[in-house]
Amino acid sequence: MTEPDARERLIVRGVNVLSEHGFAATGLDSLLKESRVPKGSFYYYFRSKSDFVLVVIDRYAELWDRKLRRILGNVAMPPLERIERYIDESTAGMKKYGFKRGCLVGNLGQELGSLDPAIATRLAEVLDAWALHMEACLLDARAAGDIHASLNPKTLAQFFWTSWEGAVLRAKVQRSTLPIEHFKEVLLCHLRTAGAAKSSAAANPGVAP
Amino acid sequence: MTEPDARERLIVRGVNVLSEHGFAATGLDSLLKESRVPKGSFYYYFRSKSDFVLVVIDRYAELWDRKLRRILGNVAMPPLERIERYIDESTAGMKKYGFKRGCLVGNLGQELGSLDPAIATRLAEVLDAWALHMEACLLDARAAGDIHASLNPKTLAQFFWTSWEGAVLRAKVQRSTLPIEHFKEVLLCHLRTAGAAKSSAAANPGVAP
Repeated sequence: MTEPDARERLIVRGVNVLSEHGFAATGLDSLLKESRVPKGSFYYYFRSKSDFVLVVIDRYAELWDRKLRRILGNVAMPPLERIERYIDESTAGMKKYGFKRGCLVGNLGQELGSLDPAIATRLAEVLDAWALHMEACLLDARAAGDIHASLNPKTLAQFFWTSWEGAVLRAKVQRSTLPIEHFKEVLLCHLRTAGAAKSSAAANPGVAP
Repeated sequence: MTEPDARERLIVRGVNVLSEHGFAATGLDSLLKESRVPKGSFYYYFRSKSDFVLVVIDRYAELWDRKLRRILGNVAMPPLERIERYIDESTAGMKKYGFKRGCLVGNLGQELGSLDPAIATRLAEVLDAWALHMEACLLDARAAGDIHASLNPKTLAQFFWTSWEGAVLRAKVQRSTLPIEHFKEVLLCHLRTAGAAKSSAAANPGVAP
């Protein structure tokens, strides 16, 4: 009844399907059918539907971790260009899939966040891990003098992912890259110019010594 | 079979329930039961489930429109303080409901955006209407010299709502106001200091003449 690749097929299919729809719209039956896995063997591979979702989240987190390391950790590129690259690559990915695919973490967060505590905790952990990559990149930017010394890389990194999830959600709803373009424009303007005193201000109390 | 208040009870209950969960988790049966409306009369009041959701969205949009007029349109208060007030009032509201309630527009957008074109279009219209209130407030800020002349109120207003939806989603998942606090910190830093040339930069090409 079991075969080595069936579990893997379910996980891969789960990642794709949960990137498009939430959990409620994803019928377990059709997922099993599309993965060519007999209905009866699901509970051989996973303890529960919730356990399956956690495994799918872990797989998605691994894939994204590699992408973030490759782009945000690329020291051959100026830090702010790495952030632009991440936004541009992800936008191209959304376009490629006709704006059907969003972010699995955002999709599940919206739907299950208020329902399943284990999944909510795991989603928060994934976003925290992603924030560490962004924070490291922003620390590089600060060390290079590309962002103002008064900006806080930790806060900005958290801000990046919450705003990014919002922009991806809206891009999906509007089937347009415009919300991501607005996000990118404001974010880069912020990183390049914020923290400096306004010309009209006498002093900038936020500047670090 | 019909009575004047039944439709109203369904709409009010719909607003509350869809602010907490998405559409899939909201069973029509329990909604009818909680509203004390007999199952058979639903289609007397609404053509379809989709029609009901559109009416609920309109009601929610009206409520929020009044709130935005009251806070963002309050010319007695400095423009940036109005934006802070909106964020603070909404955060207090989320706390009050134990982070169960998020934004109905965000909830539905995540779930139905990729499924029902009529609902997706209506959600985008609502967010555009909200953006107009924010844009007017930011134009006041620019006229008062509170934000840099190079900042674009239209882009910033769109950015505000996409980021706000992301922050509300994450606050719900984490059951914490922290994501909203990060959003507020970065946004206000941006409005107060961005657009100015960095001390290290020779000139700021983004400044309007």
